[in-house]
Amino acid sequence: MAENITRKIIAAHLVSGDMVPGSEIGLRIDQTLTQDATGTMAYLQFEAIGIDRVATELSVSYVDHNTLQMGFRNPDDHQYLRTVAARYGIIYSPPGTGICHQLHLENFAKPGKTLVGSDSHTPTAGGIGSLAMGAGGLSVALAMAGQAYFLPMPKVVRIWLDGRLTGWATAKDVILHLLGLLTVKGGVGKVMEYAGPGVATLSVPERAVITNMGAELGATTSIFPSDAVTRDFLARMGRPGDFSELVADDGAAYDDEVVIDLSTLVPLAAAPHMPDRMTPIKALDGMKVHQAAIGSCTNSSYADLKTVALLLKGRRIHPETDLMISPGSKQVLSMLAAEGLLAHIIDSGARLLECTCGPCIGMGGSPTSGGVSARTFNRNFEGRSGTQDAQVYLVSPQTAAMAALRGAFTDPATWGDAPARVELPDSVPSITDLFLFPPVDGAAVEIVRGPNIKALEKFAAMPEVIEAAVALKVGDDITTDHILPAGAQITALRSNIPAISEFIFSRVDAGFVARIKELGQGIILGGENYGQGSSREHAALGPRHLGVKAVIAKSLARIHRANLVNFGILPLILADKADYDRIAQGAVLRLATADIRPGEAAAVAVEGGEPVMVTNDLTRKELDIILSGGLLNTVRR
Amino acid sequence: MAENITRKIIAAHLVSGDMVPGSEIGLRIDQTLTQDATGTMAYLQFEAIGIDRVATELSVSYVDHNTLQMGFRNPDDHQYLRTVAARYGIIYSPPGTGICHQLHLENFAKPGKTLVGSDSHTPTAGGIGSLAMGAGGLSVALAMAGQAYFLPMPKVVRIWLDGRLTGWATAKDVILHLLGLLTVKGGVGKVMEYAGPGVATLSVPERAVITNMGAELGATTSIFPSDAVTRDFLARMGRPGDFSELVADDGAAYDDEVVIDLSTLVPLAAAPHMPDRMTPIKALDGMKVHQAAIGSCTNSSYADLKTVALLLKGRRIHPETDLMISPGSKQVLSMLAAEGLLAHIIDSGARLLECTCGPCIGMGGSPTSGGVSARTFNRNFEGRSGTQDAQVYLVSPQTAAMAALRGAFTDPATWGDAPARVELPDSVPSITDLFLFPPVDGAAVEIVRGPNIKALEKFAAMPEVIEAAVALKVGDDITTDHILPAGAQITALRSNIPAISEFIFSRVDAGFVARIKELGQGIILGGENYGQGSSREHAALGPRHLGVKAVIAKSLARIHRANLVNFGILPLILADKADYDRIAQGAVLRLATADIRPGEAAAVAVEGGEPVMVTNDLTRKELDIILSGGLLNTVRR
Repeated sequence: MAENITRKIIAAHLVSGDMVPGSEIGLRIDQTLTQDATGTMAYLQFEAIGIDRVATELSVSYVDHNTLQMGFRNPDDHQYLRTVAARYGIIYSPPGTGICHQLHLENFAKPGKTLVGSDSHTPTAGGIGSLAMGAGGLSVALAMAGQAYFLPMPKVVRIWLDGRLTGWATAKDVILHLLGLLTVKGGVGKVMEYAGPGVATLSVPERAVITNMGAELGATTSIFPSDAVTRDFLARMGRPGDFSELVADDGAAYDDEVVIDLSTLVPLAAAPHMPDRMTPIKALDGMKVHQAAIGSCTNSSYADLKTVALLLKGRRIHPETDLMISPGSKQVLSMLAAEGLLAHIIDSGARLLECTCGPCIGMGGSPTSGGVSARTFNRNFEGRSGTQDAQVYLVSPQTAAMAALRGAFTDPATWGDAPARVELPDSVPSITDLFLFPPVDGAAVEIVRGPNIKALEKFAAMPEVIEAAVALKVGDDITTDHILPAGAQITALRSNIPAISEFIFSRVDAGFVARIKELGQGIILGGENYGQGSSREHAALGPRHLGVKAVIAKSLARIHRANLVNFGILPLILADKADYDRIAQGAVLRLATADIRPGEAAAVAVEGGEPVMVTNDLTRKELDIILSGGLLNTVRR
Repeated sequence: MAENITRKIIAAHLVSGDMVPGSEIGLRIDQTLTQDATGTMAYLQFEAIGIDRVATELSVSYVDHNTLQMGFRNPDDHQYLRTVAARYGIIYSPPGTGICHQLHLENFAKPGKTLVGSDSHTPTAGGIGSLAMGAGGLSVALAMAGQAYFLPMPKVVRIWLDGRLTGWATAKDVILHLLGLLTVKGGVGKVMEYAGPGVATLSVPERAVITNMGAELGATTSIFPSDAVTRDFLARMGRPGDFSELVADDGAAYDDEVVIDLSTLVPLAAAPHMPDRMTPIKALDGMKVHQAAIGSCTNSSYADLKTVALLLKGRRIHPETDLMISPGSKQVLSMLAAEGLLAHIIDSGARLLECTCGPCIGMGGSPTSGGVSARTFNRNFEGRSGTQDAQVYLVSPQTAAMAALRGAFTDPATWGDAPARVELPDSVPSITDLFLFPPVDGAAVEIVRGPNIKALEKFAAMPEVIEAAVALKVGDDITTDHILPAGAQITALRSNIPAISEFIFSRVDAGFVARIKELGQGIILGGENYGQGSSREHAALGPRHLGVKAVIAKSLARIHRANLVNFGILPLILADKADYDRIAQGAVLRLATADIRPGEAAAVAVEGGEPVMVTNDLTRKELDIILSGGLLNTVRR
């Protein structure tokens, strides 16, 4: 049967389920990547599984997020990541080596391979024909342990590219156009698979710009064919052996299709504060730009930065505009220096930042109050830049450079002839020596944990009978922010469950932690939509650490419910919502875990009152996970 | 009469006082510099004086401290500094252009000129024969307004250099040796003036390393002759016209002398946690080094970094050591890139940071918990690195590079042949275009103030009669940290007196601010040594903003007393310390300001009790300053 690329890779990696859109499938994972902000918890979870070495073909731990090192926590995290990588057979990329997705594309990504990464822009590697998906830290830990990665079988949308880019239009404008067309929800449950004659006109780094920011469509991932262009890229990168051809069969079916004529595209921006607020640059003509920032996993390749350097050559940026440039990797930086291009950047007045994510994740580089910032990044959510009232426009490197030179957005018609397309040289300098490759046997490696890094405790199995007080009763619409607030102080404790647990429900009830510690264990009674909001695992890990055995609520938000399962807390639903009023905070409840059966009602005894009935929507597999003490325990067996 | 260099420059700039060590002199100031952390307040004070343009020959505003931009406050400060510079005739150096002292040495410092800068390492320019002194923001503001800079006439110590450096010894080891000899208090009230045959063997950047870190001796400043080496340096820097010869006369007298034979020096470190804990590197042989950091105003010149690059060439730093390099200026960075030296740095695994102060001021780059850090910086106070228990050793660039390569301090005898001395090329690339030079007439320039930057209010003159309650009564040894705590949250408000005033005495009495606002004005009653500790002006500015009219104490610390005078608060001493117990918090006191005469006792009426007598140690000039409402008011007239 004629198949598309996505289904070919899935079929080759399928370990469970059927390839029916929406139904759960399990995939064998060839490669994993982590970045430092999510990586520490992923490796703590991997350690908790207790196997001796990663089971993947290749796993890489990159440090690119928290590299400013304002205090001991960042460098201690780096030290932990370096040593845990050596211990378990993982390649380590030290801080400053580059941005994970850029480095992975240049050095490790392969056509036809599956990749999960604990970063939402992992689909960047789709530019080289890898099926690359962002996931939570636990999923990455499980993949490193050789477990399947589970996801709903995606629909596959063919994005048919006609023509070729002209003038000042770039790959960034392709994905901005698509975001304008489909919106930030347009890719949910789908893989965007690129095809058509336009594909051959795009280099691998250009394709990677498009697949990178496919994350903003909400897509499962995006993927390009692996073709002659891919072969050429891999050869120039010094790894011709990593090439394999991967194209859709003639007549392959797709679930949907979008057609884009590349030749009609013009320079675009995503206007504040959403990546799909597509606006032609021409429409912004005359708007003062206070800051321009070039870099991020979206737009920091050699070709991007060389193009920028040649635009800046012999010119001075506008005196009232601050231009920051963060190369995507030391390879890119080396090439810029060797070709004399760095001089153009420096002489223009631009600032050269380290090869990290930096301003893209609000790690420095905040704009002025109310300032307009033209950024080559992928997200422009309100406040993400670190300045609450900044106005961030997402643009191409060319557009950012022109804005920095002019001090304003201007009509591209006034920019003159578009620069020639930059090609990679025949061969590029290797930076392989900058990675730390693990020893063949890591058993002797000592893992170094700073005072803020605590090994995950082993969670006990669920007792046969839960007899515990309602340690907290809350109302409707409790978010994971209510359960565990965000903010720098608390986020810095993410590798330290005992410490971060001190903040559980701190915004809701300052006495909660002391109370449940006194009780030793407890049950949470919730209203409607308990656990909505961010997917943070710590909102389940913290309560579990404190002894929460079950959450009984009127209804539960989907992702938090899954996290409760993963960390061994029973997510139960009141059969009769009116019973909510019959249970007071402090009441002691009693239930036998043997009474809990998938989808069935069970009685919970209420001290000094009538029993209440609870139901659940758990599968047998999920219930077993909970009873064993959580997913890590299940896998450990 | 035969004179030394220091006295020649002072004599040429003397506007008041006699050149008798210890007695106050006033100097005409030719040049000023500021950095951003202290500069915003300096310019707010300059604005409050109300003149139209700086009266100096040259004033430069550098941005090199707060450049990470974690939020709007840093970039808003930069924007204010840029616009206030253009308005008043000041050269502006944007963030990332380089470190103030390095840039000033390369571009603006001149032999024989006086320079005051709102940074303690301003003496760096002594390497080129400038009499360069660090001062508070108000002193710099006054100097920009054409007022004299007042200081006690220093003693002049001749540092006689014999011989020449050999092997791995460097200029850094000269000043570390001197610090070991004289301690961090050894230079107080003195200018260290270098002489002897060893002087001619040192380049201007090497001399600047020595004068820079003379600040750690507590010296008023340090200075080298301006000689053939200086002439050569200025010619290569493209400004031969800035040279003038300046040497001590034969037979010139000095107040003291120290002799150093350069040929006996070896690589040294200042051990934790004080710059004078001098230790030979050999004695540290085998100590693991977790981090090395090269840069700062002490050691970031072209010669320093080229030497490092050549040491790193073809080698890989130790996998367990993190090496960070911050070039001193874009000129240095450009030259490294143009000569292919940057490639050696990148290929070694070192991290390239922006051309700023960075880790030296704890602005990022913190070491791991308990980590040993070898830094080419000038201070290793406990916790300054951002990691409380880090062990910071101050060393030369060569020593830092070798530690990074070996992963440990090792005996220099094992380092092989010392590298050849690096000379500047015949001419260097100009970065003049990167500075923003002010328009000839700045009247039309709009000064942009972010929401955290508030113009200084105009303080009213002292009323004829003070009738105010004791708003706070405190005990002995109150520090300026008690009056205004440090910490990032509060420090970020330094350009916003109303906002920072909300924290006055917050650690001592949380009700103080509300109480004095309710009262409208007040008097502080203090014990012994009131106002000891840091020199922060805000500990006087904040109370003044809140309406404090007088501090009456058993005794007052010297610098805080001077700040009280500058900002128009009466510093009074209880004639009988026993009267402290007779005045309760809340008691209303009354005194006529006409009764206060320099050095004389005066009666203060106490509501419902006997009057108490107060004295003072004010000069007539100081008293007039206070009565006018503070020094800015006096100058404004």
